[in-house]
Amino acid sequence: MAENPAEERLRLLSEAEAFKREFERKLTPIECLSPRSPAVFISVGGGELGDLALTAAGRLLGGANGGVRTVVFDRYEGFPAQDSADAYEIFDMLNGDMLEEAVKKYIPDPDEPHAIYLEIERVDTFRVCKLGIEDGYRVASTPYGPLICMDRHMTKLMFDRLNLPRVEWAYAGSPEEIRKAARDFNLPVIIKPLMTSSGHGTTIAHQWSDVEEAYDFAVKHARGKGSEVVVERFLPELKSQGTEITQLVVRHFDGDGKIVTSMLPPVEHRRPGATYHESWLPATIPEEAVRKCQESAGKIAEFIGGLGIFAVEQFYVEGKVYNNEVANRPHDTGMITRWMLNLDEGAVQLLSTLGLPILKRDLELARSGVYGVAHVVLAPKRENHREAPVKCWKLWEVKRYMEAEGYQGDLWYFGKPAAYPGRRMGLAVAFHENLEEARRRAEEIAHYTEDRIFYG
Amino acid sequence: MAENPAEERLRLLSEAEAFKREFERKLTPIECLSPRSPAVFISVGGGELGDLALTAAGRLLGGANGGVRTVVFDRYEGFPAQDSADAYEIFDMLNGDMLEEAVKKYIPDPDEPHAIYLEIERVDTFRVCKLGIEDGYRVASTPYGPLICMDRHMTKLMFDRLNLPRVEWAYAGSPEEIRKAARDFNLPVIIKPLMTSSGHGTTIAHQWSDVEEAYDFAVKHARGKGSEVVVERFLPELKSQGTEITQLVVRHFDGDGKIVTSMLPPVEHRRPGATYHESWLPATIPEEAVRKCQESAGKIAEFIGGLGIFAVEQFYVEGKVYNNEVANRPHDTGMITRWMLNLDEGAVQLLSTLGLPILKRDLELARSGVYGVAHVVLAPKRENHREAPVKCWKLWEVKRYMEAEGYQGDLWYFGKPAAYPGRRMGLAVAFHENLEEARRRAEEIAHYTEDRIFYG
Repeated sequence: MAENPAEERLRLLSEAEAFKREFERKLTPIECLSPRSPAVFISVGGGELGDLALTAAGRLLGGANGGVRTVVFDRYEGFPAQDSADAYEIFDMLNGDMLEEAVKKYIPDPDEPHAIYLEIERVDTFRVCKLGIEDGYRVASTPYGPLICMDRHMTKLMFDRLNLPRVEWAYAGSPEEIRKAARDFNLPVIIKPLMTSSGHGTTIAHQWSDVEEAYDFAVKHARGKGSEVVVERFLPELKSQGTEITQLVVRHFDGDGKIVTSMLPPVEHRRPGATYHESWLPATIPEEAVRKCQESAGKIAEFIGGLGIFAVEQFYVEGKVYNNEVANRPHDTGMITRWMLNLDEGAVQLLSTLGLPILKRDLELARSGVYGVAHVVLAPKRENHREAPVKCWKLWEVKRYMEAEGYQGDLWYFGKPAAYPGRRMGLAVAFHENLEEARRRAEEIAHYTEDRIFYG
Repeated sequence: MAENPAEERLRLLSEAEAFKREFERKLTPIECLSPRSPAVFISVGGGELGDLALTAAGRLLGGANGGVRTVVFDRYEGFPAQDSADAYEIFDMLNGDMLEEAVKKYIPDPDEPHAIYLEIERVDTFRVCKLGIEDGYRVASTPYGPLICMDRHMTKLMFDRLNLPRVEWAYAGSPEEIRKAARDFNLPVIIKPLMTSSGHGTTIAHQWSDVEEAYDFAVKHARGKGSEVVVERFLPELKSQGTEITQLVVRHFDGDGKIVTSMLPPVEHRRPGATYHESWLPATIPEEAVRKCQESAGKIAEFIGGLGIFAVEQFYVEGKVYNNEVANRPHDTGMITRWMLNLDEGAVQLLSTLGLPILKRDLELARSGVYGVAHVVLAPKRENHREAPVKCWKLWEVKRYMEAEGYQGDLWYFGKPAAYPGRRMGLAVAFHENLEEARRRAEEIAHYTEDRIFYG
C-alpha cells in the first residue's frame, strides 16, 4: 500500500461493495436447529465480549444439544470465555496458518451452518478475509467488514464515500506529515495508529514538541507493522458541551428471509483517555440527535453489509453528530446492554451472525425509570509493564461497601488469571434515576473494587 | 421406619435441629476468592435449575479463574448443565458409593471452601447426609435439610412442630388407610408418594374407586421403595378463589458474618395437574398474605438452618395461607426470577451456599410495570413411554409468531437431547402489564413452540 495508500484503500472499498452482494446472496437463515448437526459459532478472541456471545448460546438455545456448538480461540491459558465454550484452542491468532487450520478443524465444510466472529483486532484479518472470499466462510459481518473497520484510514474514506459527517482528519506517514496536517487543524490534534483496538496507541498532542513522541507511540502500538498514522482534529467543545455515543446497529434476517438493519438504543459514554472507561443506557441526547446517530450508523452497516453488529463511535456536539470510528463487532461500551436490554450485545451478535431471529422488542430497554452505568475495574498502573498473576479478590468487601452506601448495582468480575498494568478486570454497575448519581456510584464501586483485587 | 414412622421421623427432626447448631458454627463466609485454590461448587443433578446456578459462576465471578470451580453430576449424556460446568460426571446418583466417590474426587478435603447443592431428589440423600455429618461436607442447606424436605411425612410433622397453618393430611400405608383418612376429609383427596419431586406420582382421587389405582401409582412413582403415601384434604376453594405461591427464602451470610434469612418476592403459579406449569412475578396476593407467606417460610428456613434457598409451596385461599411442601433448593416455579429479579434463583443458590454475599437489593424486581409469566414447553404425551431423541427445533417459526402477534417475551430452550412424553423442554416467557394477557401470551408461545420441536 506504500505508493498511494488512499487509492489502494478506495479500490478495496469498491471490491468489498461488489463482493457484499455475492456474499449476501449465499447467506441463509437457520430454519432448523439440530443437535445432530449443530451450527458452529467461532469467536476469534475470548475476552469478556466473546464470553457474552458464547454464554448466550447456552442460556437461550441450550448449547450444542440445542443446535449451536461454540468454539473460541485466544492466545493464553485461562481467558474469560475459555470455560464458556464447547471447545477452545490456544494460539497466536496473528499467525494466519494456525488460524486457518483451527477454523477448518471446527468447520471442515463451509457450506454447513456457521458463523465466525472476530472479537478482537489482533488477528490475521487478511487471512480471515481470504477464507471468506475463497472458501466461502461466513465471516461477520462480511469477509471485508473487519478489514475496513480495523483500518482507520479506510474507515474514514468510507465515511466520505457515504457523505457522513465526521471529524476532520489526515493521513500521515511521518512526524513531518503530522506537523503539516496539524498546522491546518490547529493544536491539539489526536494521533492514532492506523490499526489498533480499544484506543491503544492514541495520543493527544498539545504541543509541537509532542508530535514526534506521539508518532513513535502510535507506530509502536499499531496492530500491524508500518509507519502510517491518522491525525484527527480535536473538538474542544466535545468535553465541555458534547458527549460520546456508541450507536450499535445489527444486520440480521427478518421473518421473510430478508437481511435488515435494526438499531439498538444509543449507548452514551465518557473517557478521560482513549480507552473505554464508563458507559450508560439510556443516552441523554435529544431525539433528533438519536435520529442522526442512527441514520449514519445505518448507512455504514448497509454499505458493509452481511450479518451481525456494528458499533459506530460518534461525537455529539452542539446539535451535530460526527462519525469517528467503527468496530465490526460488539463494543466495550455496549457491555451495559447486559443489564439494560432484553438481549445483550453478545446474544445479538450470536443470533444475528448465525442467521437466527432477532425481534425489535429484543433490542428494547428491559429496565425503565433508571440509568444503568457501567464503569471499568482496572488493574493498577505500575512502572514496569510486566504481568502480575491475580492472587485473590474480595467480593465481600465490595458488597459490604455497596450495602453500607445503599448502592444498587452489580459487579461482573471477568476472571482473568493475570493482569498487565491498567488491564480491565471487571465492570462495576450502578442503577439510579439520576444519571450523575449513577455515574458517581458506579465509579466509586469500581475504584473500591480495584483495591480489593490482589496481585503477585 | 416401618414400626412407628411418625416417631422415627420426629426423632430425626430433633436430631436435625441439634446438629444444625454445630453445623452452622463451622460455616464461614469466603472472604477471599482465589484462582489458585478455587472454592468448589457441586450441583448434584444438572437440569435447568443446575444450569442457572452454574452459569452464574461464570457470569458473575469469572468462573474457576475468578475463584469458583463448578462441578455437576447427572445420569445421562447431554444434560443441560453439562457444558456449563468446569467438570462433570455421569452416573446414577442413587448409587451412594459412586456419589461419595465423585464428591470426594472433586472435594478431597472438606475443610476447603465448597458447597454441595442437591438439585434433584433422585439422589442417595442419606449418603449425602452422612457425608455432611461424618465428614464435614457442606451440604446445602444442612445435611439434614434435603432429607426433611424430600419426605412429605417429615415435612408435615415439621409444620406441626412449628405450628404452621397447613392443609389437613394423613399418613397411609395401604389403600385401606387412605380410605379411612379420606372418610374424615371427604372426597376428593390428593394422594402423593412419600418421596418424589415435581409432583410425580400424585393423583386427585374423586371417587372411592380411584383410591386403589392412585395408591399403586404413588408407590410406583415414589423415589425410594416402600409402601407409604400421604393423603391430603383437597381445598375446593383453591381453584375457584385461591392461588398458589412459592415463597423463596434464602439463608446467607450478612456483612457481619452472621447467617440471616432473606425473602425473595413471592412467586405465584397455577397448574392444571400436579407438576409445574406456569408461574409469574410479581404475585397478586395482598400485602397481608405476603406477610403470612414469608413468616411461615422464614420459620421453616430457620428451623432447618444452614445456607441456601428453600422453596415453600403455599396455598392462599380466602385470607388464609396454607403451607404444603418445601423444596430445599431453587424451584421450578422460581425460574421466572431469571427475567424478573436482579439475581436469579440459581445465582442466589450459588452465592449463598458458598458463603458469598447477597444484598437485599439483589433480591428485588428488575422490571417494573409488567408481569413476567413463564410457561412450560412440554414434549408431546404419547401412548408408549419411550424416550424420543430431538431431531430439530424451529426457533424462527416461534419468533415469527411472536412478531406477528406483537408479543414481548422470551424463549429458553433447555437443549435436552431426548424426551420422554410430557418432558419439560423449555420455558416460554411473556411480559405484559395485564396479568391475564401475559398468561395467555406465555401459554400461546409455549404451545406454539411445542409444535416446533421435532422428535424421532
